[in-house]
Amino acid sequence: MYFETFNQFKQQLRQLDSWFEKAEAYAKEKSFSPDLYLGFRLAPDQFGFARQVQIACDTAKLGASRLTGKEAPSHADTEKTLAELSERVKSTLAYLDTFTAQDFAGTAERVITQPRWEGKVMSGADFFLQHVVPNFFFHVSAAYSILRHNGVPVGKRDYLGPLNQHLP
Amino acid sequence: MYFETFNQFKQQLRQLDSWFEKAEAYAKEKSFSPDLYLGFRLAPDQFGFARQVQIACDTAKLGASRLTGKEAPSHADTEKTLAELSERVKSTLAYLDTFTAQDFAGTAERVITQPRWEGKVMSGADFFLQHVVPNFFFHVSAAYSILRHNGVPVGKRDYLGPLNQHLP
Repeated sequence: MYFETFNQFKQQLRQLDSWFEKAEAYAKEKSFSPDLYLGFRLAPDQFGFARQVQIACDTAKLGASRLTGKEAPSHADTEKTLAELSERVKSTLAYLDTFTAQDFAGTAERVITQPRWEGKVMSGADFFLQHVVPNFFFHVSAAYSILRHNGVPVGKRDYLGPLNQHLP
Repeated sequence: MYFETFNQFKQQLRQLDSWFEKAEAYAKEKSFSPDLYLGFRLAPDQFGFARQVQIACDTAKLGASRLTGKEAPSHADTEKTLAELSERVKSTLAYLDTFTAQDFAGTAERVITQPRWEGKVMSGADFFLQHVVPNFFFHVSAAYSILRHNGVPVGKRDYLGPLNQHLP
């Protein structure tokens, strides 16, 4: 289910990208610069909107990379405008588009580590379920909450996107 | 991976329950009633804290029930205190504790429907990935953001909980 979950991450990132248009329209209506969103936050000691989007992107990008061993493109975290942030999302989507189900063969048993873990490791299965999935949705939801709190008219449908519902 | 994901939902619900203690301590420090949290929200037209917790619980409970056909306990959504909300989380955890991996055999191909879908259906696999997982993390994260925005000292570790890291 790794590949299918990353497909869902792609859907969430496409939805996130669609919020930028609503945010820009709301900024225009209220006569403020849309680039101000990048610094908005819900608490003084919490990451602002730009960082939430960057981490959501990197959680998906580095998650896929570490779970498969496939090299990830680097991003400098220098976005200053809403347009640049949208490019960041699109670049992450383009990277995720390169994966196939085969890339995730053996992922569950892979040994994952990160510099900050001080030599400790996690299995691919644990890393995915305990770290990648919760963090990805956390930062996408935080970005959503920051926009919602600041008046942007996003709703649950904008978060979920289309569901694969059909007549029986 | 259905059963393992619901195990992760249980971890997130235990973490959510642990935030209540921090919220109560903060309320005591600032001399306000901890039950006020239940009505706090991030936007006038967004659900408040109590509803976010109720929906997080129900997304896990009804998700597990619909994906397996196992009857779920009903909850009346009448919580008025932080203590009652904590009981709601614990009751959901007790229900999720009754599941085994075997309960999810055949889940991917199950046909899922809900009254509001007007006769349409989803496969168990799509319902799980497109609806249950994104919604669950969305409402847990919304509850977190409401507490964080209102001064409760919760951080990323309180969200994730313990990771299964070990020496190689």
